[in-house]
Amino acid sequence: MTETAQSPAGPDAVPVAGPAADGATPPTEQPLKVALLGCGVVGSEVARMLVDSADDFTARIGRPLELVGIGVRRAGVERPGIDSALFTTDTEALVRRGDVDLVIEVIGGIEPAKSLILTAMEHGASVVTANKALLAEAGTDLFSAAEAAGVDLYFEAAVAGAIPIIRPLRESLVGDEITAVMGIVNGTTNFILDKMHGQGTGYADALAEAQALGYAEADPTADVEGFDAAAKAAILAGLAFHSRVRGVEVHREGITEITRSDIASAKAMGCVVKLLAICELSGEGAEATINARVHPAMIPEDHPLASVGGAYNAVFVESKAAGRLMFYGPGAGGSPTASAVLGDLVTVARNRTRHTRGPGESTYAQRPVHSIGEVVTRYHLSLEVDDRAGVLAAIAQCFAEHEVSVQTLRQVASPGEDGEARLVVVTHPAKDAALAACVRALDELPAVHEVLSVMRVEGL
Amino acid sequence: MTETAQSPAGPDAVPVAGPAADGATPPTEQPLKVALLGCGVVGSEVARMLVDSADDFTARIGRPLELVGIGVRRAGVERPGIDSALFTTDTEALVRRGDVDLVIEVIGGIEPAKSLILTAMEHGASVVTANKALLAEAGTDLFSAAEAAGVDLYFEAAVAGAIPIIRPLRESLVGDEITAVMGIVNGTTNFILDKMHGQGTGYADALAEAQALGYAEADPTADVEGFDAAAKAAILAGLAFHSRVRGVEVHREGITEITRSDIASAKAMGCVVKLLAICELSGEGAEATINARVHPAMIPEDHPLASVGGAYNAVFVESKAAGRLMFYGPGAGGSPTASAVLGDLVTVARNRTRHTRGPGESTYAQRPVHSIGEVVTRYHLSLEVDDRAGVLAAIAQCFAEHEVSVQTLRQVASPGEDGEARLVVVTHPAKDAALAACVRALDELPAVHEVLSVMRVEGL
Repeated sequence: MTETAQSPAGPDAVPVAGPAADGATPPTEQPLKVALLGCGVVGSEVARMLVDSADDFTARIGRPLELVGIGVRRAGVERPGIDSALFTTDTEALVRRGDVDLVIEVIGGIEPAKSLILTAMEHGASVVTANKALLAEAGTDLFSAAEAAGVDLYFEAAVAGAIPIIRPLRESLVGDEITAVMGIVNGTTNFILDKMHGQGTGYADALAEAQALGYAEADPTADVEGFDAAAKAAILAGLAFHSRVRGVEVHREGITEITRSDIASAKAMGCVVKLLAICELSGEGAEATINARVHPAMIPEDHPLASVGGAYNAVFVESKAAGRLMFYGPGAGGSPTASAVLGDLVTVARNRTRHTRGPGESTYAQRPVHSIGEVVTRYHLSLEVDDRAGVLAAIAQCFAEHEVSVQTLRQVASPGEDGEARLVVVTHPAKDAALAACVRALDELPAVHEVLSVMRVEGL
Repeated sequence: MTETAQSPAGPDAVPVAGPAADGATPPTEQPLKVALLGCGVVGSEVARMLVDSADDFTARIGRPLELVGIGVRRAGVERPGIDSALFTTDTEALVRRGDVDLVIEVIGGIEPAKSLILTAMEHGASVVTANKALLAEAGTDLFSAAEAAGVDLYFEAAVAGAIPIIRPLRESLVGDEITAVMGIVNGTTNFILDKMHGQGTGYADALAEAQALGYAEADPTADVEGFDAAAKAAILAGLAFHSRVRGVEVHREGITEITRSDIASAKAMGCVVKLLAICELSGEGAEATINARVHPAMIPEDHPLASVGGAYNAVFVESKAAGRLMFYGPGAGGSPTASAVLGDLVTVARNRTRHTRGPGESTYAQRPVHSIGEVVTRYHLSLEVDDRAGVLAAIAQCFAEHEVSVQTLRQVASPGEDGEARLVVVTHPAKDAALAACVRALDELPAVHEVLSVMRVEGL
């Protein structure tokens, strides 16, 4: 401001209004060029917000943004509020222009997203992506390419929609030791489980309703089989534990086999069933290993995650110094995801304006991921057994032989005409491998007609 | 890695382990020098964590940190696990050394903290502080000094302890329009109100218990009169609305006048009483103004903030695109606050290593703060009135004359021997100024013996 005060306007000159007035660098007129790849639910919201709030973006970044092109699969589709001259089906040419500063990828899936991002980086653009599947599969390639090109790769929108969770893990908690991350990170399955719990709907009907409402896709595999949540768990585990974790390293069980009887069992225990993404560090210091898993689990009704309903997401983070933190908000949808994308865009644009980069990947700890067999949790088992003397003893003996300690064992249904009884067993924490061996042995016992369900119990 | 492969060790050379292996810049040996100002509950935890996790800090920053001195008021006090050679009572000399890269201020209060921070910046150090009172009073001076010196000023620990809230507001949501922030940001008052609600304890006894347990200070004014929460509200409002808001601009009411009868009234309504910090934007675009206030309020028992107990904090953020987000965690304490301080320290150290700075202050919107009189909320009033015909009509008339619309009006206690009745009135949303005028008029009504309490109702 000293120079302004000495300008020809004299010492009483009124300071320039706007950003310059609070000591920040005045906006350079040269805009930063932005290319948008994909214009579906998220992309069209991003494009509209870039136009609607252009002045705010300029003030917050210190330079204007200019949307120079939108790569789409099909030309000629009208998007209200978006200049149709921006659309191009030659997305490859868009990322090869060489004058693009910032690329936003909201196409999803592995290809062509991966090639486009790599090409964009080679041509000097920083990238903001919402693509969890790609990051979980090929994060290593992308981060290396960003490093080699000296550009940023940001991805807040890839996990838990609008909820700020990447930046808190990558930056806010970077002076602490995170020990566990546990969350509901898939809204589709959460909606289905909610329906099953609240209205007693069966899985198939709940899925059909989710599809009718647009919460589930025609092919729901990625959601209901846990692939989407596993990709997010891989990203969270990698960030939390300064290691590389790929989607395929995450143990994954979906919700397609959850029955009304499982839900009823959970209710009888004062629990709800949720699809959880869990990342934990086991052991201390250099010996510590990671477990990352996605599976349905029973959690107590008074657990904070139990009340996370519908399409909402929530993530718990536990660390040595900070203790227990929770982050909650809309987990998907055009506007919330666009909010996360644009938060990253401003950060990356600020970095570019200052000729610098964000923190990048941190994988120095290189902790291995251990197998699901080593994971220790509690289990809830439901068994159909003979209703006669000695059966309970045989079953208890089977658990003891496999070193699975039983917390409660109770008969929940009166025997039918056929002399059957239903037993519910809740174990103390046990190794997954031990429990699996125990379940196989139970299946062999003549007194056991069927092992109806086995589900983990978390959050006790 | 190409160069390594061509090194004399031959093409089969094993890649170098550690950070260099994932393509990051190998750590420069020259450490970044850190000075710590204050060694109380937070400071001693920071000092210990810096030593205990030194290798992790080096890997995460890319350069080692070296704690070069700890400024304390009294020498000779032993702090377990901290090298006593680091202590100095000449804190001024510590920040004048000129070779210090990073200064952590956890002294608290206005002076000497302010002068020490300004001196440290003038001598080229970036600063991390947990000092909400100072930021709320003299933030402008500090941010200008940081800008002039080209250094960073980070302050995640100043609001809501370990909960990442500053970075989400300053960075994650910077592409969105935040419309409201509402939170429980003072653990001491939350503990006291919890006691009053849960155990029916009176204010004085609940305060004494908080003091005995170390949750409240001997002089509890800053907490119970809402000064601490008001400073935090000022910081949150400034960040959320890209404006400057000072602590004195925040309307402030403490909890010292909350009675058992207020708590009972809240319970009767299915509510709890919480001390809330609220920052809202009223109006649209360039015309929008800010209101920032701290006061006790009744909120419904099923509101997520209602179950935030004891020394925990929680902050709700509402924005146009992201919707409703919540952040929850420990609001104070040595370790949680140290976690936030050290997250900032790593970020600031990374910036310094890359010769860059973080986003700095964003106050371009320069929105004015409007007075409490303009704020629109619901109110709960408790009145002692004559128990005779015509009284209800007179009271209803008084509300109508002041344009305060009544939602419910009910008699809660049977009349005593003296012909008195107690009335509870809950209003529809009304302007604070209108309500205040109405309360003055009610006080003048011959039929009204006393206005027992007036409390805002939020979160309906």
